[in-house]
Formats: sequence, structure tokens, C-alpha cells
Amino acid sequence: MEELFRLTEDVKDLLDTDRAERLAQLLAESHPADVSRALRELPVEQQTTVFRLLSREQAGSVLHEMDDQTLLELVRALDEVELSGILEQMPTDNAAQVVDELSEEQAEKVLDLMKEEKSEEVQELLEYGEKTAGRIMSPEFVAVHEEMSVAQALDHVRKSASSEHAFYLYVVDDHDHLVGVVPLRRLITADPATPIRLIRHEDVVSVTPETDQEEAARLVAKYNLLAVPVVDGDRRLLGTVTVDDVIDVIQQEATEDIQRFGGVAGDETVLDPAQAVFTKRLVWRFINLATAILAASVIGLFEGSIRSLATLAVFMPIVASMGGIGTTQTATVVVRGIALGDMTASVLLRVLRKEVTLGLTTGAANGVVMAVIAYIWKGQLLLSLILGVALIFNMVVAAVVGTLVPLALKTFRLDPAIASSVIITTFTDVFGFFSFLGLATLLIKFLL
Amino acid sequence: MEELFRLTEDVKDLLDTDRAERLAQLLAESHPADVSRALRELPVEQQTTVFRLLSREQAGSVLHEMDDQTLLELVRALDEVELSGILEQMPTDNAAQVVDELSEEQAEKVLDLMKEEKSEEVQELLEYGEKTAGRIMSPEFVAVHEEMSVAQALDHVRKSASSEHAFYLYVVDDHDHLVGVVPLRRLITADPATPIRLIRHEDVVSVTPETDQEEAARLVAKYNLLAVPVVDGDRRLLGTVTVDDVIDVIQQEATEDIQRFGGVAGDETVLDPAQAVFTKRLVWRFINLATAILAASVIGLFEGSIRSLATLAVFMPIVASMGGIGTTQTATVVVRGIALGDMTASVLLRVLRKEVTLGLTTGAANGVVMAVIAYIWKGQLLLSLILGVALIFNMVVAAVVGTLVPLALKTFRLDPAIASSVIITTFTDVFGFFSFLGLATLLIKFLL
Repeated sequence: MEELFRLTEDVKDLLDTDRAERLAQLLAESHPADVSRALRELPVEQQTTVFRLLSREQAGSVLHEMDDQTLLELVRALDEVELSGILEQMPTDNAAQVVDELSEEQAEKVLDLMKEEKSEEVQELLEYGEKTAGRIMSPEFVAVHEEMSVAQALDHVRKSASSEHAFYLYVVDDHDHLVGVVPLRRLITADPATPIRLIRHEDVVSVTPETDQEEAARLVAKYNLLAVPVVDGDRRLLGTVTVDDVIDVIQQEATEDIQRFGGVAGDETVLDPAQAVFTKRLVWRFINLATAILAASVIGLFEGSIRSLATLAVFMPIVASMGGIGTTQTATVVVRGIALGDMTASVLLRVLRKEVTLGLTTGAANGVVMAVIAYIWKGQLLLSLILGVALIFNMVVAAVVGTLVPLALKTFRLDPAIASSVIITTFTDVFGFFSFLGLATLLIKFLL
Repeated sequence: MEELFRLTEDVKDLLDTDRAERLAQLLAESHPADVSRALRELPVEQQTTVFRLLSREQAGSVLHEMDDQTLLELVRALDEVELSGILEQMPTDNAAQVVDELSEEQAEKVLDLMKEEKSEEVQELLEYGEKTAGRIMSPEFVAVHEEMSVAQALDHVRKSASSEHAFYLYVVDDHDHLVGVVPLRRLITADPATPIRLIRHEDVVSVTPETDQEEAARLVAKYNLLAVPVVDGDRRLLGTVTVDDVIDVIQQEATEDIQRFGGVAGDETVLDPAQAVFTKRLVWRFINLATAILAASVIGLFEGSIRSLATLAVFMPIVASMGGIGTTQTATVVVRGIALGDMTASVLLRVLRKEVTLGLTTGAANGVVMAVIAYIWKGQLLLSLILGVALIFNMVVAAVVGTLVPLALKTFRLDPAIASSVIITTFTDVFGFFSFLGLATLLIKFLL
């Protein structure tokens, strides 16, 4: 952290004192991830100035590390010739991610200006759906034929242009079908004359380009892989999804889950400008307004009772609020369980039983305490009992709603995380007001 | 997913029909991660039966992949001799993680039974604080002297017992100080006579054993590493934190952030039994009860106004609810921003300005719409205006609270995620009720 701050400060100093040469040198010595962070802290005009001091190759790495918002501002200021030159230096998958962020017009111009082969490779990746393994795979990998010897394979590795990220050799047969994998280290320790066929692992976990990126990430995480190969319907190797991309996917999906649950767009970042997030925030706030009005209309049904007994208005938000925490706790665990693959149909009953048990027991504990406090506060025994009972009811409803709503969304192929507090607490607000005010209205003659 | 279901079903079938030999064979052919998942679906007695069919080595891998809850149940059923035999086969860091889950008494017995060297290594790791790099590092790595040639280094790799996970060679000087790193692939492509000194990368990102595991994970993610070396104060190499452990840390921290924000313990899983989570759930529910009573007591101050005008009770939860979504949205983005390292002191004013702008603008939009709806519903112009104004006020308060509370917690070295909805919405509940009912009470003579 401290080093990063120093880089940002140093860059600012050198800019202010107009020492471009020293600045270019400093940037060349810094890690692209650090340069990218430092750039973000600068005003937009200065970002372009500093960016232009980078070598093409480093510029590509810096672009890859950059958050979408800064990237957009920066590429808008660059011309297409500059941009295409940088993209050509980038690994194909990273270049595709940048092109994907450009406006259609700019993307077309840039792809036209790039060398034909690279441009086609980028376009191929972009044809796969968003958030698929195809979109994030790297088409660079090292493949060897199963009949090669270890010595031949080593020679092939030496000659292949692929990056230092090749930790696995993929083994293919005569028809280019994937038939195995050999970790690089195994290659070093094996006798040079051994045929690859004999040292390959045959059980290769693979995905197709259409596989959801989250599923590909889950496989890499589960089997502790450094990369997972992407194959077509005939098991022909198309590329690999590497562990550094998997980490990005995991971070991104975690952010998405957290933020959607909080009623925020999955890709919002804390540094996005207000106008960029206004609409999405507003949509959720209006949805919340609608659900709040729904809950209020339930209260409206009992306005007469409240007029006779204003104390009802004092207690009613407690019932709703307790339903809110109950359903939020349950839904949080269930949504996360779905994301981690723990929450499957086979354990539904077990989870439902557990949550209802928790709803009943904690509800009873909270209900009794609340009834006692209410009795001490207002001295109305029956009202205090109604409050306690409504609270227990609502906690059980919360358990059921919190378990079933995310699962129902999942069943309809929607993201369970949109079962955000906004949606699920509507159930407990409505039920909470209804049960407490309803019970009180039924028994109102004993309460007055 | 389907394969996993098949394994679980197959295991159950073979258990029911008592074909232990076929079952042992099936397990031996399956990936430890899959066996671990399948075990979890079985009743506790059967878990032990199946587990005992595994080879010691595979049993270790299966234990490593297992969730804490199932692990606990399983090790309770195993005797210490069995357990120590399995732990000896495990990589030291994984063994330490299992020992850490045992009761003190069982841990002591098991460590006594293990081979002295391994037992000491495990104990060394356990001496580092929880959630530090030291606790999750693997003491197995491959180090070479800077004056070795590439050929000598390759020979050293061949002879070293370290696992297939060695993708980097760490380079040390005469005093065993870390002075560089060479990716395995570079070793293959370099001329055998080249001294290691000439091909090493000198800029090695490293951590100390006391570094927070989350910080170590952040470095691996940021610099796209496969492992980060752990060094002591003199830069002597102690071990490495590998990318598969980093993925576990990232998943675990994401779960923690999501769940704490939802008022649930950070390590709860959807399959934990009710009694294991009862207390922690209950604590948050009681905290919520206390904050709800606080909000209710604010309403209590205005009971007289509500008695005169019951409509106030209908509208007041809307103001509170809108404050709730506002503060939850803001805090969600800020908490996630802190976790990702985006939200730092240097951007505080920028973020605060943005959130207040959003609070004002969306508040105005929501306030106007709500005022119109309230006017159509109840026909009381002044009351509708008061509702709209209170709503706007509360959205601005929500923006400030949602930004500052997580940051304040961070400043006091508390987890920002405990600024859960429960805590932050208390501010907007209290302020919402107070502003709406307060304004209405001030103007009550015009409202009746």
C-alpha cells in the first residue's frame, strides 16, 4: 500500500516539474498493476499524458490491469492508430476484453487497423457469449502429440512462442483431440526417451467455450488447477482459462453477489461517477418505494385500530424489523451457499428444517423478551402477548421466505442474489404488519 | 455437477449392497474433492465407514478438501493413531489446518503420535497467528543458489522431493537470503551453462509470516502470481503461499464479507446444523431487537400526534424503509471498495460527494413521486409535502452514514462488514421517524 502511494506521489511530482524523461524511466521500472492504480488517481488529462510515456507492451499490460471506468475515459482520449498498436502487443484474451469495452464505432476502426491475424483472433473470442469460458480463454497454449518423446516435447516447449504461463503441456492424438495433460515439472523429471503417452494424466478436466465462466472458475478452484483447457464438441483444444483469470472471475462474481444483494449493480465500483450509477441506484430505490407503499397499504387497512390505540403504531415496526433481520440472515447464507455450490436440491429439506427451527427458537427467545419489555413499557398484558406471538410468527415466515425465494430464483435461472433485502423483506414487512395489526384488531375490544 | 451426483449415488448403492471392494476401487479412482463432497451427503456413521476405505494419502487429500463441519464430525469418530498416520501423508500446511480444527486434547495426542519432524513443522505453522500468511504457507519449496548453472538447477529440481506445485525456483545467496526467482519454464528454455544469477528476476514480491492472509492473496491476485514467497526479517525463505490457497482465502473472505453484512457469522455454511449457529444468529437478532426498540421509542415520543392523525402511522415506515435502501446501497459499495483496496483515505471526499449527490437526486425523484402518490391516496397536501421532504432528508443522511460508518470501523481496525444492515439502518430508522413525525408534530395544527 505504502509503495503504491509513493508511486502516485512520485508521478504527480514529476508531472508538476515537467521531468518527462525521469517519469518514463520510473514507469518502465514499475509493475503494470501499480502504474494502473497510480493512473486512476490522476485527473483525466494527465492520465493520457502519463499513459503515452509507456512502451506499447507495458501500455497493454497497464490497460489489462485497469478498472473499466478509467479504461473508458483513457481510450476515449487515444486515437485508433495508437490503440491498435497497443492491442497487437497484448495477449489475445486481454485485447478482446479491451475491445469489448470500446464503442462499436471505435472497436470497428481499431480492429481494421490491427494485423489481420490478431484482429481475427480477437473477433473470434468476442463471438462467444459474455461471461463464458470462450470469452476469457487464452488461445495461446502448448500442445504436444502423444507419440512424442519427453525430449521432443521439451524441444517443442523451447521453440513455442507461448508465454511463461505454460505450466501444463496438453497432449493430443492424431485428430488433434485432447487426450491428456503433463505438468511441466513432470517433463523435467522424466527420462528424455519416455513417450509422452506414458506420463500423461488421462483424466483431464475440461470445459467448452459456452461454459459459464463461474463454472470454469469453480472447477479450477475445486481441483486446484493452474488452468483448465477449453475444447469444442469434438474435444479439439481451443484455448485455456488460466488461474489468474479465474481469480478475476471469482472476485468479480463475489462483488456481484454482494452488491446485487445490497440492491446495487453487480459491476459498480466505489469510484464510479454519480451519473454512471444514478439510473441503476434509482431503479432499486423505486422498487423499494413500491414495496414500502405495499407495506404501508397493509397498515392503511388498520388505520381505525391505530386511531383507537396509537400504541400499535409504536410497536408495529419492531415486528417488521425482526422479520427483516431473520429473512436477511437466512437468505444471505442460502445465496452464498448456492454460489459456492453447497446448496443443492438434495439438501433443501435439511436446510429448510434447520432454518425453521432457528426461526422458531430465536423467535421464541426474542418474542418473550419483547413481550416482557412491552409490558414494562406500556403495562398492557394482552397487547404485549400479541406482540410476542406476531414476532414469532414473522420469524418463521422469514425462515421460509429466506430459504425458498433465492432457490426459486435459481430454478427460474435468475441470479439468486437479486433476492436482495429489498425483495425478501417485503414479505416479512407485509406479513409482520398484517399479523400484528390483524391480531390486535381481532382482539381490539379487550385492548381498549 | 452431474458427475458428482453420480458419485454420491454410486457410493450409497455400493454401501447398501455391501460391496466394499468395488467401493474402495471407485473411491481410489475419484478426485479427492469429489469424494469429500460425496461424503458430506452421507449420514455420520457411514462417513466413517467410507473414509476408512481410502488410502492414507487419499484420506489426507479428502480431509483437506472437506468443510469444517463434516471434518469435525469425522475426526471425532477416528482414533488418534489413524489420524496421525493420515496427517503424516499430508502437506504440512494442510495438516496444520486439520490439527487446528481438533480439540486441544485430541491435537496433543495426534501430534505426539506423528513422526517428530513432521509434528514439529506442523507446530511451527500453528504458532503463527490465525489468518496470517505463516499459517497457510507451505514449508515445501525449491530453492537454488544464485551461482548454480541452469543445468545444476534442473538437476536439483529433479532430485527435490517437493511437489508438482513447484513452478518457481527461488534463488538464494550465500546467507540463504532470497535474491530472485526463476519460473520453471525459463529454466527449460535457457542455455544449460547460463548461471542462474543472469536469468533470475530480481524484483521478488514477498510477504512475512505475520502478513494478513488477505494481503498475501491481494498481492498474488494483483501481480498474477502462482505463489508468493514468505520470508523472515532477514529475507530468509520460510515457505510459499500458493495460488490454490489464495483462491481459498479469496472465497473465504468474500463469504465473510457477504455474511457479516447480512448479520451472520463469517464462517457459517448452509449445511451447519441449527445448534452450531443458534447463538451467533441469536446475538444479531437481539442487537436488531435493541435497535428496533430504539426506533420504536422515537415513535413513542410522537404517540400523541399519531392518536390525532393515524395516517402518520401509515406513512412513517416508508420514510424509514427508503433510508434503509439508501444506506444499504451506499454501505455495500463502500464495504466492497474497502475489501478490494479501492476505497482509501485519498478518495474519501470524492466518494462522499458522489454519494450525497446520489442521495439528493434520487431522494428528490423518490420524494416527489411519493408526495404525489400520498396526495392522491389521502388528499392531504401539507402531509404529502412533509412526507416528501422527510424522505429527501433521510436519503442524504443515508448517504453520509453509509459512507462514514464502514470507514470509521476500518479506522478503528474493525471489519467494515460488521456495519451490517442491522447497524447502519438504525441511523436511518431513527432519523426517518424523527424527521417525519417531528415535522408533522410541528405543523400538526395545520394538518388536522
